[in-house]
Amino acid sequence: MIFIMEATRFLTLDDVAPLARGCAVLGTGGGGDVRSAALAAGRAIREYGEVPLVGLDDLDDGDLILPLGSIGAPTVGHEMIHGDDEPELIRREAERLFGRAPAAVMPSEIGGGNGVHPVAWAARLGLPLLDADGMGRAFPEVQMVSMFVAGLPPTPIVMADVVGNVTTVRPVDGLWAERIARAVCVAAGSSALMADYILPVGEARGAVIEGTVGLALALGRAVERTAAPLAALAAELGAKILVNGKITDLRRETTGGFARGTVTITGVGEDRDRALTLEIQNENLVATEDGRVLATVPDLIGIVDTQTASAVQTEGLRYGQRVSVLAWPCDPLWRTPRGIATAGPRAFGYDLDYIPLEDIT
Amino acid sequence: MIFIMEATRFLTLDDVAPLARGCAVLGTGGGGDVRSAALAAGRAIREYGEVPLVGLDDLDDGDLILPLGSIGAPTVGHEMIHGDDEPELIRREAERLFGRAPAAVMPSEIGGGNGVHPVAWAARLGLPLLDADGMGRAFPEVQMVSMFVAGLPPTPIVMADVVGNVTTVRPVDGLWAERIARAVCVAAGSSALMADYILPVGEARGAVIEGTVGLALALGRAVERTAAPLAALAAELGAKILVNGKITDLRRETTGGFARGTVTITGVGEDRDRALTLEIQNENLVATEDGRVLATVPDLIGIVDTQTASAVQTEGLRYGQRVSVLAWPCDPLWRTPRGIATAGPRAFGYDLDYIPLEDIT
Repeated sequence: MIFIMEATRFLTLDDVAPLARGCAVLGTGGGGDVRSAALAAGRAIREYGEVPLVGLDDLDDGDLILPLGSIGAPTVGHEMIHGDDEPELIRREAERLFGRAPAAVMPSEIGGGNGVHPVAWAARLGLPLLDADGMGRAFPEVQMVSMFVAGLPPTPIVMADVVGNVTTVRPVDGLWAERIARAVCVAAGSSALMADYILPVGEARGAVIEGTVGLALALGRAVERTAAPLAALAAELGAKILVNGKITDLRRETTGGFARGTVTITGVGEDRDRALTLEIQNENLVATEDGRVLATVPDLIGIVDTQTASAVQTEGLRYGQRVSVLAWPCDPLWRTPRGIATAGPRAFGYDLDYIPLEDIT
Repeated sequence: MIFIMEATRFLTLDDVAPLARGCAVLGTGGGGDVRSAALAAGRAIREYGEVPLVGLDDLDDGDLILPLGSIGAPTVGHEMIHGDDEPELIRREAERLFGRAPAAVMPSEIGGGNGVHPVAWAARLGLPLLDADGMGRAFPEVQMVSMFVAGLPPTPIVMADVVGNVTTVRPVDGLWAERIARAVCVAAGSSALMADYILPVGEARGAVIEGTVGLALALGRAVERTAAPLAALAAELGAKILVNGKITDLRRETTGGFARGTVTITGVGEDRDRALTLEIQNENLVATEDGRVLATVPDLIGIVDTQTASAVQTEGLRYGQRVSVLAWPCDPLWRTPRGIATAGPRAFGYDLDYIPLEDIT
């Protein structure tokens, strides 16, 4: 396999900031802290060089993809930074388990810091980054990945923590994967690096969401080059703006490895008689107004700064902030029956049927 | 390796009851339910045949020993019985990790059901049982084994639960082993089968406690054939009888995968003006009288029925029971500085120095 070919694109230092901005938007509040991930990505590119960004077609069918992501409460991620050794610990264990070395790193989730950090992990491992991920967004639970929806087995899951503990789980199904991996994560201080659904390229087609690293970069660039960032972002995403307002109520707690909460956004200007409520479990999951659902997971609901269109992550929400709420459609995979069963509103404990965003008036 | 040689002893159906009685005594309250373990051992011997009992010298230095034990709250073990597949799931994972099949099963702890259940596991796997264990008693935490005291690395730990999930942990040390394995165990419903310190025979000498299966059998037999079982048991163990009395206070709770509690035994007959208090964390750990320590972990403290000398496990303690409290010395390995640091009173949170039982008057 030759990475250095004319067609190969490299992720450079200049790409880190726009990638981080785009990943923050796709994270819909979650996916881990983008700022520390961007620092790590910048540091690793400086130290190890630029990272080839490849597509599935640049790899051989037998090449092993190593999907990597942090698991844990994003609020913990702020204080407990990943060490430098976890990717190598996981790579080594994957090689031991599969009998061959991984050929590329893939973000498990493109949303939040988990979309940005893989640049650092790939750089350290000397591997290219695959322009794809397992969510097209961020989700809080282990089984909520496209590979699960596509019916692939999650086993083995390999986890490493900052201390150097390595845990491999062969769960019987995706729900047990979540239970056990979450318990290991909490034991490690609510933060660990995880590889699940390690898979050959030949099985990845239709089971990963392609082009999402490129999409995140495009979102970040779109907001950069305009005097009207909110409109530019909405246009690039094909998003509805649900409300422009300010945060007037905010409840958050970190429990069982999750950041859970509720935020109320009271409209300003033309929206001044309105009030939106968002339900949060790491990510923004359901938007309601006067008890009526305006958008629901797996469709994406983003809170952004009204002036700059910068995404506000769950742990960055502050009383009084001027924000706009955007909503846009998820990848079609999430709208299949298995996709909705996995990550629809009922999967998060809400007594709601999923209605596609486009069908809500 | 030939198991069927003249010198080989086999564990038969007739051995199960005395083995269970002896393991209950060595369990000092813990080590898991002996009754369900004895049922499982009997059933497996009927189904798969008698189990060869071998010593280290019957095996080759390169032969792999598979130490097996249940992890979890004994109170949960009563209601959630092991499935039949866990030993095979662990054996298969061990073979995958080590590149060769285990040659013998060893009880991780001889105390309680964990001393008896390995007969069933060995029978199912078609492997001999090693006449040795990792404690010479029962202990509640993963790192509290002789192999840890001997300085061997705990890695890898392989766990399987009744659902079929298999988890392999490569912890950086014994304390992290306990934290992560305990979390996995709690996620699986506070009960799992575990192999840790999987090791070749050549490394086992001095790192396992030899002859403990035979000792448990001898204890069970000693109590069987006498009109004075309490005296016979005390003689066989070389134990002090701390008090003869009845249970007058009892507090237990199951929390974080442990059964914790305190029991007060008020003397009867010659002991009628006395009251002993035992501190329990799965096992009986500290015996005090009027604030004075009479015996402390790692020395062994057993509660037995005064008439029959049958051990009373923690979850079998009842208000009003007529019991006697015995104490006897632990294996010398536990009295080394590393042994006391691992399983002395301070390792369990008691602000006490260890004093050998023989030095307490």
